[in-house]
Amino acid sequence: MKKLNSFSDKELLPGISIDCVIIGFKDNNLVVLLNKYSKNDKWMLPGGLIHKDESLDEATQRILQRRTGIEDVFLMQFHSFGSVNRIDIEENRRLMELYGFIDERLLSRFVSIGYLSLVMCDNVVITNSETESCRWFEIEKLPLLYGDHNQIVKRAMDTIRLYIDIIPLGYALLPDKFTISELRKIYEGILGRELDRKNFQKKMLNNGLIFSTNERKVVNTYPKPILYSFNKERIKDLEGIM
Amino acid sequence: MKKLNSFSDKELLPGISIDCVIIGFKDNNLVVLLNKYSKNDKWMLPGGLIHKDESLDEATQRILQRRTGIEDVFLMQFHSFGSVNRIDIEENRRLMELYGFIDERLLSRFVSIGYLSLVMCDNVVITNSETESCRWFEIEKLPLLYGDHNQIVKRAMDTIRLYIDIIPLGYALLPDKFTISELRKIYEGILGRELDRKNFQKKMLNNGLIFSTNERKVVNTYPKPILYSFNKERIKDLEGIM
Repeated sequence: MKKLNSFSDKELLPGISIDCVIIGFKDNNLVVLLNKYSKNDKWMLPGGLIHKDESLDEATQRILQRRTGIEDVFLMQFHSFGSVNRIDIEENRRLMELYGFIDERLLSRFVSIGYLSLVMCDNVVITNSETESCRWFEIEKLPLLYGDHNQIVKRAMDTIRLYIDIIPLGYALLPDKFTISELRKIYEGILGRELDRKNFQKKMLNNGLIFSTNERKVVNTYPKPILYSFNKERIKDLEGIM
Repeated sequence: MKKLNSFSDKELLPGISIDCVIIGFKDNNLVVLLNKYSKNDKWMLPGGLIHKDESLDEATQRILQRRTGIEDVFLMQFHSFGSVNRIDIEENRRLMELYGFIDERLLSRFVSIGYLSLVMCDNVVITNSETESCRWFEIEKLPLLYGDHNQIVKRAMDTIRLYIDIIPLGYALLPDKFTISELRKIYEGILGRELDRKNFQKKMLNNGLIFSTNERKVVNTYPKPILYSFNKERIKDLEGIM
């Protein structure tokens, strides 16, 4: 077996990785972006290691761009995962053997910093290659993922649900102008249950995070629904402390 | 200079540390617990490194117990700090030289996992030693701390303020039974502003996180104020996803 330093291009921080939970909304279902090395039998979260000259946030943007083609999305660091046996080291060894190399650094314990983002699937251009593919999976129907990645996805969803009353993270899933019922469907998807129409509308209008554009959606029903927008400045302020 | 492996007792994870932001409430002020090596001129958050055979949460409990004497508190992981120059390496070198050793591992970049906790100061037995001391500081009057620790404290406070409407983290600062105005003072301390008495009471009673014990506080004023308790099961559920 060839001993190869697969990261010889750049110096990397030891023992720390980043995993990205990129969540979208497709056909009324929440979906998560996963990738897979062609020789691996398990899908995994898009992730990678950190260069010695970049911050965690910079590393996350780079990793995501390289693995999925996504650029410039708001990524929120939500939790770091550090159980002793979160990754099966022997699984890493078998995978490297399939590729004909061994990198000792991948045979030690890693703490992974989890980042999450909600994005509009249609805006995401996924780049696949011969060695690596990437696609959306329904969150409710995930296969068994690499390492503790099922738990990382679950924790990301718990975080979104916890935050949803403070920060309408779902704003990234909607166009600039949207109807209250489009917004409600996103919330129902995230919370996994139906919401009362009237209460939802009242709550959303009271929290000051959305405002009426005084325009109406062009549809064939009457009354034509009012179009709303998010108060993006306030959301940005909130994002700054997440 | 002696080259010393100061951690030779146990194998440690490289490049990752833990910092604990322990917040209390004293004389109507929020305070944070800091410690200082006798030969260092700067105070710092109680922190340490992670053994290869313990999880992040286990390491945090151990570090906190060793540095401050505090045991068994709820610690919430709130953010990981990974700017490239968050710690001044030369400052680390000077400090080690004062103690007459150099550990190369402390001359490289560290990512630090931040944990926070709110505790009752009176319940905390602080253990000081000849080489290390530990005491409470008013958050509003912190000196310049080691590395990026002022920023870590600020971020912890931002997190508490963000969460306060979801999780009454302040519950740990109060005895089992408390009056609404005692609770309000904690909230005012955390938020840094006065709150409307009536609105506060209404909000607290509506969110289901506290309940009336049907007892009244023994005081010389009339009406004697009702004593409330926190719904601890619900809080524990919420803590589980933080």
